Amino acid sequence: MTKVAVIGAGSWGTALAMVLADNEIDVNIWARRKEQIAEINEHHTNTKYLPDIGLSDRIVGFTNMEDVLDGVDVVLLVVPTKAIRETVREMASVLSKEVTIIHASKGIEPGSHKRISEMIEEEMNNSGKLKDVVVLSGPSHAEEVSLRQPTTVTVSSKRLAASELAQDLFINQHFRVYTNTDLVGVEIGGALKNTIALVCGLTDGMKMGDNTKAAIMTRGLAEIARVGVKLGANPLTFAGLSGLGDLIVTCTSMHSRNYRAGYMIGQGKTLEEVLTSMGMVVEGIRTTKAAYELATKLEVDMPITSALYAVLFEGLQPAQATERLMGRVKKHEVEQLNIDF
Amino acid sequence: MTKVAVIGAGSWGTALAMVLADNEIDVNIWARRKEQIAEINEHHTNTKYLPDIGLSDRIVGFTNMEDVLDGVDVVLLVVPTKAIRETVREMASVLSKEVTIIHASKGIEPGSHKRISEMIEEEMNNSGKLKDVVVLSGPSHAEEVSLRQPTTVTVSSKRLAASELAQDLFINQHFRVYTNTDLVGVEIGGALKNTIALVCGLTDGMKMGDNTKAAIMTRGLAEIARVGVKLGANPLTFAGLSGLGDLIVTCTSMHSRNYRAGYMIGQGKTLEEVLTSMGMVVEGIRTTKAAYELATKLEVDMPITSALYAVLFEGLQPAQATERLMGRVKKHEVEQLNIDF
Repeated sequence: MTKVAVIGAGSWGTALAMVLADNEIDVNIWARRKEQIAEINEHHTNTKYLPDIGLSDRIVGFTNMEDVLDGVDVVLLVVPTKAIRETVREMASVLSKEVTIIHASKGIEPGSHKRISEMIEEEMNNSGKLKDVVVLSGPSHAEEVSLRQPTTVTVSSKRLAASELAQDLFINQHFRVYTNTDLVGVEIGGALKNTIALVCGLTDGMKMGDNTKAAIMTRGLAEIARVGVKLGANPLTFAGLSGLGDLIVTCTSMHSRNYRAGYMIGQGKTLEEVLTSMGMVVEGIRTTKAAYELATKLEVDMPITSALYAVLFEGLQPAQATERLMGRVKKHEVEQLNIDF
Repeated sequence: MTKVAVIGAGSWGTALAMVLADNEIDVNIWARRKEQIAEINEHHTNTKYLPDIGLSDRIVGFTNMEDVLDGVDVVLLVVPTKAIRETVREMASVLSKEVTIIHASKGIEPGSHKRISEMIEEEMNNSGKLKDVVVLSGPSHAEEVSLRQPTTVTVSSKRLAASELAQDLFINQHFRVYTNTDLVGVEIGGALKNTIALVCGLTDGMKMGDNTKAAIMTRGLAEIARVGVKLGANPLTFAGLSGLGDLIVTCTSMHSRNYRAGYMIGQGKTLEEVLTSMGMVVEGIRTTKAAYELATKLEVDMPITSALYAVLFEGLQPAQATERLMGRVKKHEVEQLNIDF
């Protein structure tokens, strides 16, 4: 029987641990905070992240990295993007045998513009302990997964057999898992959609309508796909669960931190006020910077991302940004999907 | 100066007439009801369809088909899909010169499975008065267009010059118009999305979550694209404004009659109760039947449409339909975009 360690006991890590436990898999789960792990082991709850949810006693908590990884074949890595390198380095130093790492994080590294799986590979490289890296992504609020509401996700890896391993571990009646061979497309879609979610929040905060939001989502997905294709992705991946599906969930839900941050900016708050009032990292803001740099480097046109960049970092007013987007009265502009893909 | 007649003075026809008037184009508008046309001409309002909106005096109403079409170069046809053939036949009998017909209706004819532009061509065929047929489609609630909120649409025709004519007429600072050469894809996407909107309403009515809805929309768009591709469409059209964009607006808004009908069915009402309480045609129900027939004829797999068909016409319970969709625990199912497109 496969033994799995889940690294990171936030809402998403815990919800995914529950899916595994539902599939009768024993799960080690890791977090740094002793009180949190004590609560998981003694009360079988994780109330800060998933209030009112009871956890299976198949889920056992650890604060020590060596203990949690002891004898496992598969590691599910669910930590904030910022903490990926440091966490993987710590894992590499204590792993005793080869593992498959499934990650469920989203983002692009500022500066290097590396994807998550690339960062993981780099940090594991010298250890000789990495078998495969798999990404798990799709439209999946953790709260709803923990309530066993019907959910679908995609898993992807360079090697189909590794994706299939992940699919076998997670699939059940409530949680439908598809494989996709386009690792680049799955990771890029998941990362860049956070920028579009910020813009959707922003236009909603400005009291624009559903027409505007649907336009932002559609044209936003097209510009994400343009970047992805330049990086070697299959354009159709962006129409799938990890692209369109995740975009829909993120852009239409107040659950999303990125959407909420955009909403406040649309109401007239400054970036600093928003960050202070939210008191936590808003992944989409880091991603907007990375995406803007990437688009410039690859010479890809990303009008929506560029407009958001100007609002966040160059003091452009949201109303002017909208005018800039809509005001390009360029006659005979063909819907660019067919041309650029 | 181009003279345009708008046939149909519901909310969408009136909102589009306003866009033309904003662009300083004189518009004749037609409706059958004398009182409605009198209100448009005397009070410059159309309160039943667009309450609180003032109309330009460039918009002049007619109840007589011959008068409204007198001397026009372009006809914008915005009538319910059921009334297309009869209305076009009436137009053909009185037109004195060749016209371009831009239609903004959505649907597929039950039985024949013809698209709207095909029906228009058939009915105009013997008159020798048809220059081109153009479709205008995209995420566009009429109410928001009438408030000049930023909106984007696609126009498509067999001949690019005809699409460009339509683009020139409508494009302005609030209303952004893209051309697309894939007429089949634009019409099929607009028509079949109503089925998916019904299912989204249904799952919301059953109190399922955002994950489920995003999955329905994503996989729903994939099955629409499969049918479209079999009919000769470009798969990427479905990721554009007339596909994805329109799907988003329709699936996430209580404005949509199709969504509302699905919602009530999800709450446990029967189809008859829903139709009685809504007191009007729900286009998506007719479309579900046509789509199901079409999928069967073309041998295309449409699991979501088929499940809805079974609920609407074969007495399947919504909860069983969900089980049928999620319960297919088929291992190693690849996300089908890449294979089937």
